[in-house]
Amino acid sequence: MVPPSPNVVRQRGQVSADERAEVLGQRGAVVWLTGFSGAGKSTIAFAVERALIDGGFMAFVLDGDNVRHGLCADLGFSAVDRDENVRRVGEVAGLMSEAGVIVIASFISPFREGRRKARLAAAPGRFFEVFLDTPLSICEQRDPKGLYEKARAGQIADFTGISSPYEPPLDPELVLASGTLALEACVEQVVDMLSDAGVLKAGR
Amino acid sequence: MVPPSPNVVRQRGQVSADERAEVLGQRGAVVWLTGFSGAGKSTIAFAVERALIDGGFMAFVLDGDNVRHGLCADLGFSAVDRDENVRRVGEVAGLMSEAGVIVIASFISPFREGRRKARLAAAPGRFFEVFLDTPLSICEQRDPKGLYEKARAGQIADFTGISSPYEPPLDPELVLASGTLALEACVEQVVDMLSDAGVLKAGR
Repeated sequence: MVPPSPNVVRQRGQVSADERAEVLGQRGAVVWLTGFSGAGKSTIAFAVERALIDGGFMAFVLDGDNVRHGLCADLGFSAVDRDENVRRVGEVAGLMSEAGVIVIASFISPFREGRRKARLAAAPGRFFEVFLDTPLSICEQRDPKGLYEKARAGQIADFTGISSPYEPPLDPELVLASGTLALEACVEQVVDMLSDAGVLKAGR
Repeated sequence: MVPPSPNVVRQRGQVSADERAEVLGQRGAVVWLTGFSGAGKSTIAFAVERALIDGGFMAFVLDGDNVRHGLCADLGFSAVDRDENVRRVGEVAGLMSEAGVIVIASFISPFREGRRKARLAAAPGRFFEVFLDTPLSICEQRDPKGLYEKARAGQIADFTGISSPYEPPLDPELVLASGTLALEACVEQVVDMLSDAGVLKAGR
């Protein structure tokens, strides 16, 4: 009978990122989609997830729907709470990518500082900022959730693009003209980016 | 040129838990290790992670080290903050298990209510509470981090087992007599539990 001792762990060695990549056939990564409401973030996020899963990879979409009801259920929509929301999501995305998952984070995340922190929460070279460069006019025209209409009517405060600024990425890993580019082409560009970066080793 | 539309996603269908299991050869799950400081949580957590990775499965340890510096860096050690720490970890474990990861959470998590919430954050049947049933006297004798000595000296407030209660699980999925059982036997019992529950489909 050998009682567990903390030393045992160190002798056995913890699992390295390389070992994980070997077992999984992929490297964990964070694909961070940023852009206006209506730019196509969720659509592209779920289509990329679908393409990766179909290719035998492990991908997961983090979006408002699955964090606002749980991890960030205590947060509202004030500037401070929105910053904290992005901060937590960045940390979770970092943890999940450390575990080996290809995380696709879909958040307006309007401020450079918030996105910078999210990048820092992931391992170096494993964070891919993807700017959905769709003009505000197109997003507002689409208005899939009717939010722009409410924002213009003053029913939503601090709405990005209307009553709150959006700071475009200065040096994103990828820019998608998601206002005019077909969904399939957007997905292909994201997958190619991941492939080129060595994230996708070989489908299982 | 077909601009992305939210409808496209619904037509394509999001990835189901069954599809993930098929691709991954495992079902996501949360193994929640609870018990006194010094009961062997971290040791067992990392040894289980090692065993699962060696078997071709995707496992990841969530512990104080990787959340206290990031996701929960804003939290202290007051009762309220410790509850919030456990709450966030429970939510993150739930998300990671939804992605398909076998999460091994290693937290004292002394209160039933906190563990109940963590269970609710995971899908039904995918949460495994593992009680490390090591007598306090053994934990204090081990005192690997010298914390009991400090707690006895009054240098740490609200220390579980000394100046703050521990509520043992009433109906855990597994009880490990980690005070006397060999580490290898502890790991085997956890892995067998996961195997019996259908979490481990087939090593890749």
